[in-house]
Parts: sequence; structure tokens; C-alpha cells
Amino acid sequence: MQWNVYLSGEIHTDWRQQIIDGCAEKNLPITFTSAVTNHEASDAAGDFLWPDSDGFWRDHKSSKVNGIRTKNLIEKCDVAVVRFGDKYKQWNAAFDAGYCAAMGKPYVTLHDEDIIHPLKEVDAAAMAWATTPKQVVEMLQYVIEA
Amino acid sequence: MQWNVYLSGEIHTDWRQQIIDGCAEKNLPITFTSAVTNHEASDAAGDFLWPDSDGFWRDHKSSKVNGIRTKNLIEKCDVAVVRFGDKYKQWNAAFDAGYCAAMGKPYVTLHDEDIIHPLKEVDAAAMAWATTPKQVVEMLQYVIEA
Amino acid sequence: MQWNVYLSGEIHTDWRQQIIDGCAEKNLPITFTSAVTNHEASDAAGDFLWPDSDGFWRDHKSSKVNGIRTKNLIEKCDVAVVRFGDKYKQWNAAFDAGYCAAMGKPYVTLHDEDIIHPLKEVDAAAMAWATTPKQVVEMLQYVIEA
Amino acid sequence: MQWNVYLSGEIHTDWRQQIIDGCAEKNLPITFTSAVTNHEASDAAGDFLWPDSDGFWRDHKSSKVNGIRTKNLIEKCDVAVVRFGDKYKQWNAAFDAGYCAAMGKPYVTLHDEDIIHPLKEVDAAAMAWATTPKQVVEMLQYVIEA
Amino acid sequence: MQWNVYLSGEIHTDWRQQIIDGCAEKNLPITFTSAVTNHEASDAAGDFLWPDSDGFWRDHKSSKVNGIRTKNLIEKCDVAVVRFGDKYKQWNAAFDAGYCAAMGKPYVTLHDEDIIHPLKEVDAAAMAWATTPKQVVEMLQYVIEA
Amino acid sequence: MQWNVYLSGEIHTDWRQQIIDGCAEKNLPITFTSAVTNHEASDAAGDFLWPDSDGFWRDHKSSKVNGIRTKNLIEKCDVAVVRFGDKYKQWNAAFDAGYCAAMGKPYVTLHDEDIIHPLKEVDAAAMAWATTPKQVVEMLQYVIEA
Amino acid sequence: MQWNVYLSGEIHTDWRQQIIDGCAEKNLPITFTSAVTNHEASDAAGDFLWPDSDGFWRDHKSSKVNGIRTKNLIEKCDVAVVRFGDKYKQWNAAFDAGYCAAMGKPYVTLHDEDIIHPLKEVDAAAMAWATTPKQVVEMLQYVIEA
Amino acid sequence: MQWNVYLSGEIHTDWRQQIIDGCAEKNLPITFTSAVTNHEASDAAGDFLWPDSDGFWRDHKSSKVNGIRTKNLIEKCDVAVVRFGDKYKQWNAAFDAGYCAAMGKPYVTLHDEDIIHPLKEVDAAAMAWATTPKQVVEMLQYVIEA
Repeated sequence: MQWNVYLSGEIHTDWRQQIIDGCAEKNLPITFTSAVTNHEASDAAGDFLWPDSDGFWRDHKSSKVNGIRTKNLIEKCDVAVVRFGDKYKQWNAAFDAGYCAAMGKPYVTLHDEDIIHPLKEVDAAAMAWATTPKQVVEMLQYVIEA
Repeated sequence: MQWNVYLSGEIHTDWRQQIIDGCAEKNLPITFTSAVTNHEASDAAGDFLWPDSDGFWRDHKSSKVNGIRTKNLIEKCDVAVVRFGDKYKQWNAAFDAGYCAAMGKPYVTLHDEDIIHPLKEVDAAAMAWATTPKQVVEMLQYVIEA
Repeated sequence: MQWNVYLSGEIHTDWRQQIIDGCAEKNLPITFTSAVTNHEASDAAGDFLWPDSDGFWRDHKSSKVNGIRTKNLIEKCDVAVVRFGDKYKQWNAAFDAGYCAAMGKPYVTLHDEDIIHPLKEVDAAAMAWATTPKQVVEMLQYVIEA
Repeated sequence: MQWNVYLSGEIHTDWRQQIIDGCAEKNLPITFTSAVTNHEASDAAGDFLWPDSDGFWRDHKSSKVNGIRTKNLIEKCDVAVVRFGDKYKQWNAAFDAGYCAAMGKPYVTLHDEDIIHPLKEVDAAAMAWATTPKQVVEMLQYVIEA
Repeated sequence: MQWNVYLSGEIHTDWRQQIIDGCAEKNLPITFTSAVTNHEASDAAGDFLWPDSDGFWRDHKSSKVNGIRTKNLIEKCDVAVVRFGDKYKQWNAAFDAGYCAAMGKPYVTLHDEDIIHPLKEVDAAAMAWATTPKQVVEMLQYVIEA
Repeated sequence: MQWNVYLSGEIHTDWRQQIIDGCAEKNLPITFTSAVTNHEASDAAGDFLWPDSDGFWRDHKSSKVNGIRTKNLIEKCDVAVVRFGDKYKQWNAAFDAGYCAAMGKPYVTLHDEDIIHPLKEVDAAAMAWATTPKQVVEMLQYVIEA
Repeated sequence: MQWNVYLSGEIHTDWRQQIIDGCAEKNLPITFTSAVTNHEASDAAGDFLWPDSDGFWRDHKSSKVNGIRTKNLIEKCDVAVVRFGDKYKQWNAAFDAGYCAAMGKPYVTLHDEDIIHPLKEVDAAAMAWATTPKQVVEMLQYVIEA
Repeated sequence: MQWNVYLSGEIHTDWRQQIIDGCAEKNLPITFTSAVTNHEASDAAGDFLWPDSDGFWRDHKSSKVNGIRTKNLIEKCDVAVVRFGDKYKQWNAAFDAGYCAAMGKPYVTLHDEDIIHPLKEVDAAAMAWATTPKQVVEMLQYVIEA
């Protein structure tokens, strides 16, 4: 069976690539997907559409275009990894976690120990909490191959 | 028809009371619900249960007890108001928004203009964005009575 | 049993009132609901919210506020009556019909004979086609009391 | 991942072919589907079935046969493009949009600026509004490949 | 708790009344519902609607009007009793049973021993098979009050 | 796209083969499935399981084993053809139709004109009524290839 | 808001009464429901129905009659308490827990510390683990009134 | 059609291998899946994750990691075989059965005659009860190939 893993959240470090490379080394049968991770491209996702907008409506237009992608990919994944970094609000990551929870879609979180408390509701509905990409790779290997 | 409105998010200002009072003045037929908003009580929600725990597991135990309440109340509401303040991570609020979105439950956000950008995914799936409790009251009056 | 009937569509004639009055005369146990039928109020539903907008975004903002009401009322109704008049595009009425169809919610259409052909897909998924409010009243009486 | 895009609505211009050609040039992995777009064939879809009918029942019979196809294709698509032209009622297009909305299926609209207002409810539930087939192609490329 | 019991199927004997009376004697908190059981009225349910029709289309029109009632009542019941007599095809009763089965709605059958074999698929998805209205009353009393 | 068509109902004539052959001649991309159509094998489907049973329980045991197959195949089909012949009760066919209706799965009926009236509820929820296997072939060709 | 709590599992001690009494003392707005807890009555639930049976089929017949009650009550509850004692297999309790988990219905477990390990899958999907009825009362009070 | 069969429950005898071998001999098109059946590995499934835990929380952490696998595999299977042996509590097996029941997923049980009574609720919602792996093979062959 081919597994489908959605990688949600923080886009400023290479955690996605670490997980993808780690799973490739182990030859795990996984297709990885994620939102568009190029920050500028993502912010401009709706700029080619009318009406030309800025501020709230520019964000609105771009987020909805991005939503076509993310909604499809999340609903098709078998498990999501939701990553919270040490900077920025990252509300979209928590939003994705809530979306998964309501659909009964298993997800795991990936974050440091110092943000356990503000993430307690997000972690409570998760299947696991990992602190390193390597742990996620190990978990995926266990879940798929054990 | 009696409406059921869930008030999610920030617990450090009196925005809930402002909305409740504003709707009461207008005699709107609304039942308001929310998570437990006493921060200390909420953090201690599972302390009376075994095993005695601290750190991650204390948070886990308490969040799940709180989840019995929030899951029920969100699933029964007709519309949710999700409030983001200017402090703290408030990932639980974004989680609730994602939960509503996946269930097709309408929600509106309540936040200042300076956090439009980090909330763009949350706002994109919302039915409206308000900046003051008064606007929320006005919106509820329109939706229910117009 | 109390029935809940949603009245969707055309707002320029008094068909809603005719149905409501006709059912009241027969003392049918029905609660009627509908979208906001004041055209100007409906168009302005989001005007009190930021950002001030016109054109596409003004319509967008107002339609979403109206959606809080219509989505709730449609999902709670037992049967919808969808009315198409002889003027305007009335795409919102067809949209409501599609929404009902996808949810498995029974609906009936109310329109003249001369628009049978363009409404064929909408009528194909309906439970009945009526040409007068009086027929709708008769149908509701039969469905509820026979 | 192969994407499945349903093209709904207006059948009198070549917008479908423009989108299909535009995506083919970019080698996007998309399977396009749509209702039967031959108007006469579509109107006659049930003519080979008993009882011989005309008027309302002929339309009814044909629309239901067409519904076997459209219901299946819409429910299997990842995103729908719903096109409104400048002629005819096109209630079937608005019906498809409502159907998608109720299922939580993302859709985008394709129409000129002069019909923004009558389409406001349809656009409010859409993920994007495009004015040209070329924009739709650009959007699909972004959503799939960015 | 008030229970809601739908009585489906055969309309030529007084089995419905026997169950209703039996439960009334025991003061069971049950609301009984059913399709329109007046055969002629049911066949004519759509006669007041255009177009005037006979044969297949008359039946079609009337059955869909009746469907507004039956679909609502079946979806709202807690348990259905589906009765098969010794005459007629009674395909609508088997249809109702299949409808309940697909929705996960519990139903029981009520029929004589000599039609066990042709009803085996219908009985296999039922929660019980009764042979007399009195058994149904006893079962309801047990289920509600034991 | 490969289509999946479930053939339900009467097992005493070769209507299934006629449809399968007719579609094969036209090279339609269809996978056909059906319940076990060998009457004796179907009746004995559970005989190898304990406890040895006869009468009601033998039928019960066999029907449930058959249900593993039919439930899976019906839920996976794109459209079902439900055939009613001129003999026997065929309640399982009407049960399948009700099951499809509740799931929103399109189905068509195949039966002679003389049983229109007892099948009116089953036909009312169908997408079409055919009288010959050849019409079904023609319909499938239209739906898939037009 | 009135809460609906389903009490599932062990029937040989008075844990249900302790919870009911504890909540009554605190005037909590709770309706309690449960399966039939009279062991002999439950085993004989289908004895009045044909065919007279013993062994597997007697159990089968009675369990399905009981299922009419339990399925309804579980699906209507807001939260379930699933109790495991120190005797017997109590597979029905674990079955109820799995049923709740699949429906996204919150449940808590009530059992001693010495059976933590064999219950680990059941506890993993629960919202909380309590060891005494008093803890359950305290939890319900918190969830409802805090 | 390829079938997907989930093998749930007892891990101390070779019943899984007997079923897999038996089906391989008959060349049945089946993909078999199951939870991790290495008891020690399963108990340690979460040991590589923080926080280091023992007792309840170690079991909790491991069970949730295992749940990522089992939830996915159960939801994807066409039919589950749930095996109860003569030792241990095996509450996870009954939990899986309840999970299947709530999802409308067909399952069969595999157990000896001496535990019929405590398994009556689990068997009541099953499609069949087998006593030997060979019977399961025979059943699968019938269901898939008859």
C-alpha cells in the first residue's frame, strides 16, 4: 500500500526535506504533499485574478486559491504531520490540525518542548507528538512496515 | 427559532460579555456557549484524574477533559465567533476554526487589522471578519431578525 | 409534528405571503423561514464590516453574511420551496436547489410553464413542480395531514 | 497526482477547449470531464425510453438520464469550473455550484464583470472568480504545480 | 425520552391500529408516523399538479409528492416497523427497508412464516422479525421500558 | 474513466448477459458486478458455517454472507440497474433500490409496463425506467460516451 | 443545556447508581441512559419472537432486539461512560467504545489500574480515564458547569 | 476487483497465516492487512517519542501510534475478520468490531463455540461467525468468486 502524508505548517526550515529524505533512504512507499511553501508565491496566489486588491482582500483572494490545493491534499492524505516552529503565529497550521480532527483524519504534531502548553488542545487531538523530523521518519517506518 | 452561538478563543478581555450584553439589550433569541474560560481551572481540568502528571501529560489530560465540552458545544452551535487577541499563540482558536470549516459550520472571526495577514487562511474559510464585539452583535441581529 | 419549510428565490411578488396565509387558514403546523427578502438590506448586509468595499468585494462580503442565515435555515428545513419568477437571473434560487439536492433535502419548484425548459435540471431533482402558491399550500396540507 | 476537473455551464462558446488546450500545453496532469455539451443530444437524452413524452415530461426524462452522468462526474472531481455566459438562464450551472457547495467540493466561477451582482451568492461560496479561460489555466497550474 | 416509530408497508389490514392501540394501553411514550395509508388518496397525490398525466407519469408525480412525506418521516424515526402482507407486490415496503439499512436506521419486519424465504435479504438487515402486531408491541415496550 | 455498473434483481432470464454483451460490442469501459446469481448457491451461502440451521436461520445465515458481497459491490458502483421480472416477489431488488436511494447512488429500473403501478415508489427515486436490456445499453453508451 | 450521558458496560456493581446519585446531588442537568441492565431480561430479550431458538441463535435474536435500544441511545448521547469491571469478558463494553470512536462521540472509561494494559487501545481513543464513579461525577460537573 | 481484508484480534496463534495461505492457494485477489502483530514492538510503538513514560502514559503513547496504522487500514478494508482466542481480554478486537459496525463496514467473527454468549453483541452486528480459518477462506472465496 502506498501511503499519502501531508506536511503542514512552518515553512522557514528544511523539516519537510529531512522527512522526505529520511523516508527515501528507507524506501518507504510514501507520497508527500503540502501547501505551496514558497511564501511569496503563496501570498501572490490570487494576484492574477480580478479585482486587483490589497490588504484584507488580497490575502482573501490568495488564501482561497491556495485552499483549492490544501483542501484537496488534506482530504486525500492518510496522515498529516503538522509542524510548529518558534516564530510567527502559524495559525494556518493549527487550522489544518482542527480540520483533520473534525474529519477523523489522523495527524501528528512536530514541535519543541517549550510550546507544549499553548499547543495542548492541538496535541490532545493528535495521534502523537514528535520533536524531530527523525522521529517522524521512525514513526512512519513503524506505522507502515512493522 | 432559538440560535446557538459558540464563542471561541481569547480569554483575557471581556469581548464575550460585550457580545452577550449587546444581544441581550436587543432581546435576540440566542444561547451562548464557550469553553471553560477560567484559565487556571481549564489547565487543571484533569488534575483529579489518575495518573498524577505534569508537563505534557498534565496538559494532555486536561485538554481532553475540556474537549468533551468543546466538541459537544461546537457541534451543536449554529455559528461560532472565533476571537484572536494581540497576545499569546491562541492556537486553540485557530484549531476551532479549522474544526468548524471541516464540518461546514459557519464561523466569523473577530480580530484587529494588524493580524490580517497571519490569519488569512482562517479568514478565508470564515463567513465574515469583525473588528469589534459591537459589529458581531449587529451581524447577529441582522442574521436572525432582518 | 411541526414542519419547517424554507421559501427560496424570487422576492418581487408576494408568493411567500400567499403560501404563509394559505397554510395559516388551514392551521397547518408549519414554521416558515427564508433569506432576508428586503433587497436593499440584503445587498448591504456586510456594509458595517471592514474593509469598506464596493463592486465584487462588497457583494462578496454581504453574500457571506447572508450565507450564515441561509445555510442554517436550509439545513434545518424539512422541505424547501424554490420559486423562479419571470425576471432576473435568480441564480441564488438555482444554487439553493443544488444545495438541497446534494444534501438529500426534498424541495419543490414553483414557476410558470414558459420556463420549464431552462429549469429542467432543477426540476429533475425536485420532488414536484407547482405553478401557483395555492398548489403549494395544497401539497403541504396533503403531505402533513393526509 | 492526477487531478480531475469538472467543467460546468455554458455550452455556446469554446471556453472548455481553451482551458483543455491551455493545460495540455503546460502538460498539467488533469482529466477534464463535463456534462454532454451537445445541446440537441442532451435534450433528447431520454427520448429512446418509454413513455414517449413531450413538454415537461420529456425534459424530465432527459434531465434524469443526464443526471446519471453529471452526478457521478461532479462527485468524482477535485475542483469544478462553473462558467456563466451572457445569454440564457443557465440555472443548471448555478445548480451545479450549489451542489458542489453542499458537498464541500471546491469550485471556481468563470464569468464577466457585468454579472457580478446576480452571481454574488454563487461567487460567495466559490474559491475564486476568473474572467478568462487563460486565468483558469494559470490557476490550475499554480494549484497543481507551484 | 419520546420514541418515534415509523410504520411502513401493507395498508389493507389494521396492523397499524393494533400496534398503536397496544402501545397506548401500556402508555408507551411513542409517536407513530407512516405514509398516507388511504390508497386512493395516495395514488392521486399529484393530480392537482401540472401537467395532467396518466400511466407512468401520473404514478411518478404522485409518488414524488408522497416521497416528501415518507423521506422526512423515515429519516426522523428511531425505529421502523416494515409490514409485508400476503397480497400484492409491496415493493415500497422493501424499498423502505433498504433505505433504512443504508442509513443505519434500525427496523424490524412483521410478516408471516410463509414468506420467510423471499424476504431473506430484508430480514437479514433487520433487527428482528415479528409475526404479530402484539409481538411488536411487546418488543417496543421492552426496548423502551425494560 | 472506467465505469462500475451493478446489476441487481431478477435471476431467471439472461438480461444481465444481454447488457454485458451489448456493452462489449460497443467497447464501453464498464466493469459489471452483481450478487451471486446461482439461486441454489446463494441459498446455501452460509451452510458451511455453524450452527447447522434450517428455515429462518438458514436463510438468515446465507443472506448475511451474501450481504458481504452485495454491500461492497453496491457501495462501489457508479450506477445500478435494478431489474424486476414477472414472477416472484423480488423484494431484494426493491431493497437494493432503497439502499441506493438512501446513499444518493443513481439507479435505473428495468421492467415491463404492466408493473408500473406497484413499482411507482421505486421508479420515483430512480433516474430512469427502461423496458429492455437494449435500452439500458443505449443509455449507458450515452451516459459514458456522448 | 440538558446533557445526555450513556452508561455502558459492567452490570454487577452499582456504579451507575453512584454516578446518577452523585449528579442528582449536584443538580446537574443530565439525562442518563443505558442498555437493559437486568442480565436475565437482556438474555431473554428475543424469546417471545419466532423461531424458538437456543445457543447461538437465541443470543443472536436477543442481542439484536437489545441493539434497537442501545444503537438509538448511544447515537443520541453527548458523552458515554464505559465501565470495565474485574470479571467477565465485557466485550460489549469495548464494542460500544469502538462504536463511539468511529462516530466521533466522546467517551470516558471507568476501570481500575490493574487493567490499564489490556484496555490501552480503548483508553487511547477515550477522552479520559476515571477510576471511581465519584471522579466521573466530578468530571461531568466540570464539563457542564465550569 | 482486488479485495482488501483486515485481520483483527488475537496474535498468539497462526490464524492469520492460515487464512493468507488458504487464500493464496486459491489465488484469491485479496490484500491482507492487520495491526502490528509483534506484541513487544506494539507495546513499544511510542517509546522513541518524548516524554519518556511508563504505565498508563506509555500505553497511551504507543496505542495512539498504533492507531495511525489501524484506523487507516480498517477504514480502507472491504471486510474485516475479527478473531477472539481463549486467552486474554482482547478488548481491542471488540473495539475494532464496534468501530466497523458504526462505519457500516462488514465484518465476520472467528471464535470457538464456548465464547458465544459473551460475544453475543459483537456477533449480532457481524455478517457471519466462523469457527476455523478454513471456513473464513471458504467464505472469502464464495464472496469474491461465486
